[in-house]
Amino acid sequence: MAGSKYAYVRNFELPDPLLPGTFMVFRLDGHSFHRFSDEHKFTKPNDTRALELMDHAAKDLMEQYPDIVLGFGESDEFSFLIRKSASLYNRRQSKIVSTLTSLFTSSYVFRWASYFPDAPLKYPPAFDGRIILYPGIREIRDYFSWRQTDTHINNLYNTVFWALVQQGGESTTQAHATLEGTVSKEKHEILFSRFNVNYNAIDARFRKGSTLVREEISEEPSVPSHENVPARLSVPGSDGPSAIRMRTRTKPRTRIVVLHCDIIKDEFWDARPDILLA
Amino acid sequence: MAGSKYAYVRNFELPDPLLPGTFMVFRLDGHSFHRFSDEHKFTKPNDTRALELMDHAAKDLMEQYPDIVLGFGESDEFSFLIRKSASLYNRRQSKIVSTLTSLFTSSYVFRWASYFPDAPLKYPPAFDGRIILYPGIREIRDYFSWRQTDTHINNLYNTVFWALVQQGGESTTQAHATLEGTVSKEKHEILFSRFNVNYNAIDARFRKGSTLVREEISEEPSVPSHENVPARLSVPGSDGPSAIRMRTRTKPRTRIVVLHCDIIKDEFWDARPDILLA
Amino acid sequence: MAGSKYAYVRNFELPDPLLPGTFMVFRLDGHSFHRFSDEHKFTKPNDTRALELMDHAAKDLMEQYPDIVLGFGESDEFSFLIRKSASLYNRRQSKIVSTLTSLFTSSYVFRWASYFPDAPLKYPPAFDGRIILYPGIREIRDYFSWRQTDTHINNLYNTVFWALVQQGGESTTQAHATLEGTVSKEKHEILFSRFNVNYNAIDARFRKGSTLVREEISEEPSVPSHENVPARLSVPGSDGPSAIRMRTRTKPRTRIVVLHCDIIKDEFWDARPDILLA
Amino acid sequence: MAGSKYAYVRNFELPDPLLPGTFMVFRLDGHSFHRFSDEHKFTKPNDTRALELMDHAAKDLMEQYPDIVLGFGESDEFSFLIRKSASLYNRRQSKIVSTLTSLFTSSYVFRWASYFPDAPLKYPPAFDGRIILYPGIREIRDYFSWRQTDTHINNLYNTVFWALVQQGGESTTQAHATLEGTVSKEKHEILFSRFNVNYNAIDARFRKGSTLVREEISEEPSVPSHENVPARLSVPGSDGPSAIRMRTRTKPRTRIVVLHCDIIKDEFWDARPDILLA
Repeated sequence: MAGSKYAYVRNFELPDPLLPGTFMVFRLDGHSFHRFSDEHKFTKPNDTRALELMDHAAKDLMEQYPDIVLGFGESDEFSFLIRKSASLYNRRQSKIVSTLTSLFTSSYVFRWASYFPDAPLKYPPAFDGRIILYPGIREIRDYFSWRQTDTHINNLYNTVFWALVQQGGESTTQAHATLEGTVSKEKHEILFSRFNVNYNAIDARFRKGSTLVREEISEEPSVPSHENVPARLSVPGSDGPSAIRMRTRTKPRTRIVVLHCDIIKDEFWDARPDILLA
Repeated sequence: MAGSKYAYVRNFELPDPLLPGTFMVFRLDGHSFHRFSDEHKFTKPNDTRALELMDHAAKDLMEQYPDIVLGFGESDEFSFLIRKSASLYNRRQSKIVSTLTSLFTSSYVFRWASYFPDAPLKYPPAFDGRIILYPGIREIRDYFSWRQTDTHINNLYNTVFWALVQQGGESTTQAHATLEGTVSKEKHEILFSRFNVNYNAIDARFRKGSTLVREEISEEPSVPSHENVPARLSVPGSDGPSAIRMRTRTKPRTRIVVLHCDIIKDEFWDARPDILLA
Repeated sequence: MAGSKYAYVRNFELPDPLLPGTFMVFRLDGHSFHRFSDEHKFTKPNDTRALELMDHAAKDLMEQYPDIVLGFGESDEFSFLIRKSASLYNRRQSKIVSTLTSLFTSSYVFRWASYFPDAPLKYPPAFDGRIILYPGIREIRDYFSWRQTDTHINNLYNTVFWALVQQGGESTTQAHATLEGTVSKEKHEILFSRFNVNYNAIDARFRKGSTLVREEISEEPSVPSHENVPARLSVPGSDGPSAIRMRTRTKPRTRIVVLHCDIIKDEFWDARPDILLA
Repeated sequence: MAGSKYAYVRNFELPDPLLPGTFMVFRLDGHSFHRFSDEHKFTKPNDTRALELMDHAAKDLMEQYPDIVLGFGESDEFSFLIRKSASLYNRRQSKIVSTLTSLFTSSYVFRWASYFPDAPLKYPPAFDGRIILYPGIREIRDYFSWRQTDTHINNLYNTVFWALVQQGGESTTQAHATLEGTVSKEKHEILFSRFNVNYNAIDARFRKGSTLVREEISEEPSVPSHENVPARLSVPGSDGPSAIRMRTRTKPRTRIVVLHCDIIKDEFWDARPDILLA
């Protein structure tokens, strides 16, 4: 066959399987999103549109990949837990990392206009992704605790910082100086005494990040109305463009919901034992 | 610091550096593009809009990454040569693979409407990517020969196949049967005798794929007009949306051009010694 | 400094860390031991001297490396369990694999004359080694069950095979033919009816392989005499050359013992919970 | 089959192929040889017996592995160049690293008594090994230049250091202080003025290390006598125990010779083009 004299170059494609029976965490981060958020005038300290767009892209990913049993996002990053028994793409690392990063990115751009109808995308944003393997449940719990603790630390800082700037009239340099060395309690105090803000009353989305899980849908044939959605639970895309029309591989009786709750304590996990046992 | 008790999970992020001083080929492929091209009614056997969109995304990638010295695309795949001395992202494999796949995908979706103004994107497409290392010039030459030979084989087959179906009235099953076991010469013969088509007169884009290289721009300050563009050379995006406004890292005096020429013989390479020596 | 212009070649030494928090199994096998055992006239089907020499080399390895919590050997292979929290050589794969294989080999050659006083070593034997990672206890249990099942299958076959040849007067070709397709029960039957051998009465060393574990030594200052050693437990090297005089890193109150017992059922593991929890 | 329920554990054995078409350097180092050389009373600064033993083990390795086209040793380390087209063990990293380290170690222990007839081995020594990949000839030349430069630097230092201690009556602490900050020329000067030693007249073995290459044996059927051996060339094992009786895979008309010559300049390589082109 023509071409066969060159086909030996395929021998340089080496296998890159990930260890079987091991949890995979796939994490992606926005690439140069500091500039991207400036260029697109994201509100500070949090832009709800941008966060909901991230959630929607994450939901699209989970709908395509039933092996993803959990997602957690904050700011311009998202972590996904892939169950340890997954045989997705034969656990080939580059294939998984690139395809998942690609689909998330694609969805983000595809749905941009739904969340930013008045701010056209100026240039194509990018994300980077990686897979981290964890052998046990303890590490998975600690991984997500690590991310949610990070959400808390960053959001508290940013909330006070932008209050000092936007309402307190400080320059960004001054605001950084004001906050230098302060502990959590002092930041709460500044917020309350100077800006009359109770940090714990701030939208849970900002304080807790977004946690995506699959929920069983009741046998009831009626479509759940928006009114039925519990507090602190938003369904991304429910008012957006028509759902992705790919052949969905998820079983029909589950849907993906977005929570803004604590995932450090046991309660979340005890209520959803399947996440870690799958 | 809060969170530090969980921070040990970072120790599971293992290094994945690629061998220094070695050529990297980054290749990406459309994910489930058979269905994607059906859903979006790509013309057969080749859809010029779709190919030009691929070229444009490839050009965006090369503008962002000066370490990419060559691109070659056909159908829904693209290969990029990253020069062997590149220290891009410290040669971390996942970082490179995911970021490049992401940016290409993002650009593809971002520019879709410019190439398919009448066919809105129905769902977000995805690509997968991989890096292959090659130690020497011989392997790089053979790699690109392998891809262009593949372009030739596929395009010849598809050209005859769709002529049999679209003009010859055969069913797709019949057309496959008609072509089974035929050699290249016989396919040329069918095209010519039954459909009066001289295969070698078909658009070079289809027969040779797209080769993207950097070209020095003359000192002449005038912007090159579209009329000056030589035959068989198209500048993707020249009529499209405003160019990507990222901080470009390329030196100002080069631009990326798309060629549809032979890259198997020495001529192409002899004229551009920098590609393999960089 | 002189040499600094060449020192860049060190950049090609890439890291190869093994995943933290994961069990490591180090397995080594004799290289071309079929020939080696022929050249050195090992008795068939089992050569006790050769097996005891393997055990002694394994014991030397475990004395040097406290991170090894279990060893299991049969024929010319040995598997070692390295506890999951081990930071041995920063978990660098090549370093661990090469050093452990080297020390085992070195000990095997060093102690050869003690076990084969009348058969000088004709040439230096070699072993190959590998590391396999296992995320959980279940896989570790199953790994060692796999090896001991293999011991059983091989030894039963070899025992009948050599009885047919040595006592039954069959050629090796005939013996293979006699055994082809027989199940375990039939092999037992041949042994018993034709050679009056009760397979279960054969030395447990041959049927069960050698299992090396650390045992606490009682506070009693007296050296345990050979008479105190329980049945089916042998202390390799107790009559051999003086113990290795390296700075031992093991805590003083344990010693390594060789057992020939079942390690598939729970009993062995229940009695030694530290092995899997370390 | 019995055991099949456990056989899934084999799926955790992941492939580890090394990039094809790339030079491999296999380097091994003595493990804790500072103590080993003390315990076995190696002479300082160089022990010819120990160096010749290293050379002999290296020669054994090269006789077993025709893919090794060059060896270079100094002190307790040895580097081997494996030709880039080698398909040795399908280029599986652990297999190559462990087997080569094992055979070298085995040979070292096996031949110990031939080189140290009056100093029995006290305990089994170990080596560690690693593979480094190099894409091109330039890096290979620089690698070996790096090692020989290292030989020079170390040997010059050690030669002066031990002269100061053994002949100059300095303590080791004093000797280190005397040498601190001295450049090469000053060390030569100390040697010459205080100890009447011309460094360049010292045995080339110590100054240049040992380089092992294959040499064609003339058609002449007579065995080359020891007298024919050119200056600065020693044949390890020629007076030692009978040669290894393994099935040798080397072609009959080559033998391995040990040189003590410069391998930094072009001359060595120009005379042996096959080394880098294989």
